[in-house]
Amino acid sequence: MTRTIKLAVIPGDGIGPEVIEQANRVIDAVLAGSDVALERTEFKLGAERFLATGETLPESEQAAIASHDAILFGAVGGVPGDPRLRSANIERGLLLKLRFDFEHYANVRPCVLFPGVDSTLANPGTVDFVVVREGTEGPYVGNGGRLRPGTPAEVATEVSVNTAFGVERVVRYAFETAKARPRQKLTWVHKTNVLVHAGATWQRVVEAVHAEYPEIAVDYMHVDAATIHMVQNPAQFDVIVTDNLFGDILTDLAGAIGGGIGLAASGNINPDGSFPSMFEPVHGSAPDIAGQQLADPTAAILSAGLMLDHLGLAAEGDRLRAAVRADRAANGAARRSTGEIGDAIIAEIPASGTPLLGA
Amino acid sequence: MTRTIKLAVIPGDGIGPEVIEQANRVIDAVLAGSDVALERTEFKLGAERFLATGETLPESEQAAIASHDAILFGAVGGVPGDPRLRSANIERGLLLKLRFDFEHYANVRPCVLFPGVDSTLANPGTVDFVVVREGTEGPYVGNGGRLRPGTPAEVATEVSVNTAFGVERVVRYAFETAKARPRQKLTWVHKTNVLVHAGATWQRVVEAVHAEYPEIAVDYMHVDAATIHMVQNPAQFDVIVTDNLFGDILTDLAGAIGGGIGLAASGNINPDGSFPSMFEPVHGSAPDIAGQQLADPTAAILSAGLMLDHLGLAAEGDRLRAAVRADRAANGAARRSTGEIGDAIIAEIPASGTPLLGA
Ligand SMILES: CC(C)[C@H](C(=O)O)[C@@H](O)C(=O)O
Ligand SMILES: CC(C)[C@H](C(=O)O)[C@@H](O)C(=O)O
Repeated sequence: MTRTIKLAVIPGDGIGPEVIEQANRVIDAVLAGSDVALERTEFKLGAERFLATGETLPESEQAAIASHDAILFGAVGGVPGDPRLRSANIERGLLLKLRFDFEHYANVRPCVLFPGVDSTLANPGTVDFVVVREGTEGPYVGNGGRLRPGTPAEVATEVSVNTAFGVERVVRYAFETAKARPRQKLTWVHKTNVLVHAGATWQRVVEAVHAEYPEIAVDYMHVDAATIHMVQNPAQFDVIVTDNLFGDILTDLAGAIGGGIGLAASGNINPDGSFPSMFEPVHGSAPDIAGQQLADPTAAILSAGLMLDHLGLAAEGDRLRAAVRADRAANGAARRSTGEIGDAIIAEIPASGTPLLGA
Repeated sequence: MTRTIKLAVIPGDGIGPEVIEQANRVIDAVLAGSDVALERTEFKLGAERFLATGETLPESEQAAIASHDAILFGAVGGVPGDPRLRSANIERGLLLKLRFDFEHYANVRPCVLFPGVDSTLANPGTVDFVVVREGTEGPYVGNGGRLRPGTPAEVATEVSVNTAFGVERVVRYAFETAKARPRQKLTWVHKTNVLVHAGATWQRVVEAVHAEYPEIAVDYMHVDAATIHMVQNPAQFDVIVTDNLFGDILTDLAGAIGGGIGLAASGNINPDGSFPSMFEPVHGSAPDIAGQQLADPTAAILSAGLMLDHLGLAAEGDRLRAAVRADRAANGAARRSTGEIGDAIIAEIPASGTPLLGA
């Protein structure tokens, strides 16, 4: 019996369409011969669409996206400083709107340094951790405003909103993630000595949920210190859980440590299944190199791997990751076009049923 | 004629007293034979004092500190998780209170990779930049609160407050800093695509002040991307200006890049001179290694160098930095006690009047 998966594809701007093209090819190659049929709907959203039509995310399209099983997302954003985009905010109006409205509260960003990948670090050791970033609250809520804008008496505020409801669900997800991994370790990151209100909520919730997972070793780091630990000894981390903004910052740093942002994958997960989850490379739209086949599609491809896992196709996800690993081990950081990297990864996909080592 | 400088010394907790002892020795050695006389007053403040007396920063002591020309600060903070400190917040009640009340709006943190110092990075290049971190507003103001604490309906807020007044003065300081350096470059860091209110204020102010400094090249980075740039190509930076929280995070990362937090110096500057400026190593009190002569006093010593500069003793500051450079070049990361490092740096202080290269 064929299982049909409805996939919403949002290639976006800049290098988004190029990397998503390769991710789609790899998904098809991994699923070839299986009983899974993909039905894709493409949504043209992003800066380009905004410039052409003035629209960011029409309600009807959002409803159509919501009726899919998962979303594959490239990258959005126009040329920095483009005056026509000054009044637009594609990031808030499209990407963050989807994360918030679809309750993507667990933003999952693995950091694995594959063999054959050069790290910028002198002694990275064995890097294999995952950051679970809160995705629906914190300083990202958009609360705040500007009083007397443009005058010497201007005041701007940004309100970080943190609820026990929101913190608990992501912390619980992080404990579950740690429980499913061999090292059974969770590091929570905040800035409790300065952000005392939000810090107290996070601390209370982490301690309460920890009581339900006594087998998980828990430690705490201030976000500033966490950056030092991440560059000096990334091998110490297993699962990290943190708020939306700290997670944004730490996962870009983790990207650099895992061999560059061209390899960093992410899943915006709605664990309750009430809305489709969304999978996207951590990198941006990089308009400066767009359309030249210069982008590395690996981050998008690995994001598709997270999507396969999420859809209950973990064996297919493992085969995808095995192909990426094999490609890196063989080709390292050799200069290749976007399509050549896609080709090479497809060529490395192990036959279905092959035993996989360390996938 | 002898010039008398009144110095308030707050050694603090943990390794604070050990590193400040060496900083004081180096200051005395650099000033020996000069016409500057130092008058020191020591203030015993920090977690230890709080545990003994329940006091964090009595008003009378704050007033006494205010009457000095400068403050040399070690580090404060007790053993993490000490239940007796749970209700205290030494960081907010002492360190941040001094920064805020004394209008230390320019928190200046140089990052220089000295010859002989191992970096954690594979290819650091020539690292010589300075972060000017806003020190008196942003998410550090302490605004916010907890509604229904301890219940499932708990909500905690943190309000970042950003004023044109506060942003302009630190941005202006950063432009002046860039103007005094050979590369004439300023990078401002924020997260304007998400924190749109504060981001708009920062952007407006940076553009307005830039108009007065057309010779300075200005670029912008999102804070997440800035972490990648900092590990992949730290040599690109000259002066960075950013808000209080982003500056906190980026300067710990910069510490790791500049050879470790044991070398990272800072000045909490009140450029108007209405209150004494305060000089402190970026590192914390490290209670786990306290009292064992294991701490590297170099960050405290370099902070004393920034203090000499600030007090109009730039030649003495240059001699101090020349001694630190010479010590690192000779001894690299050799394991030495706190006092041995102090001894070695003192032995390297060039005679007053010696021409200095690259100090
Ligand atoms: C584009 C931007 C809004 C986004 C974020 O800040 O979350 C990006 O940096 C990311 O990490 O996915
Ligand atoms: C101790 C803490 C309050 C402080 C800060 O967050 O500013 C420290 O991390 C620093 O960078 O000086």
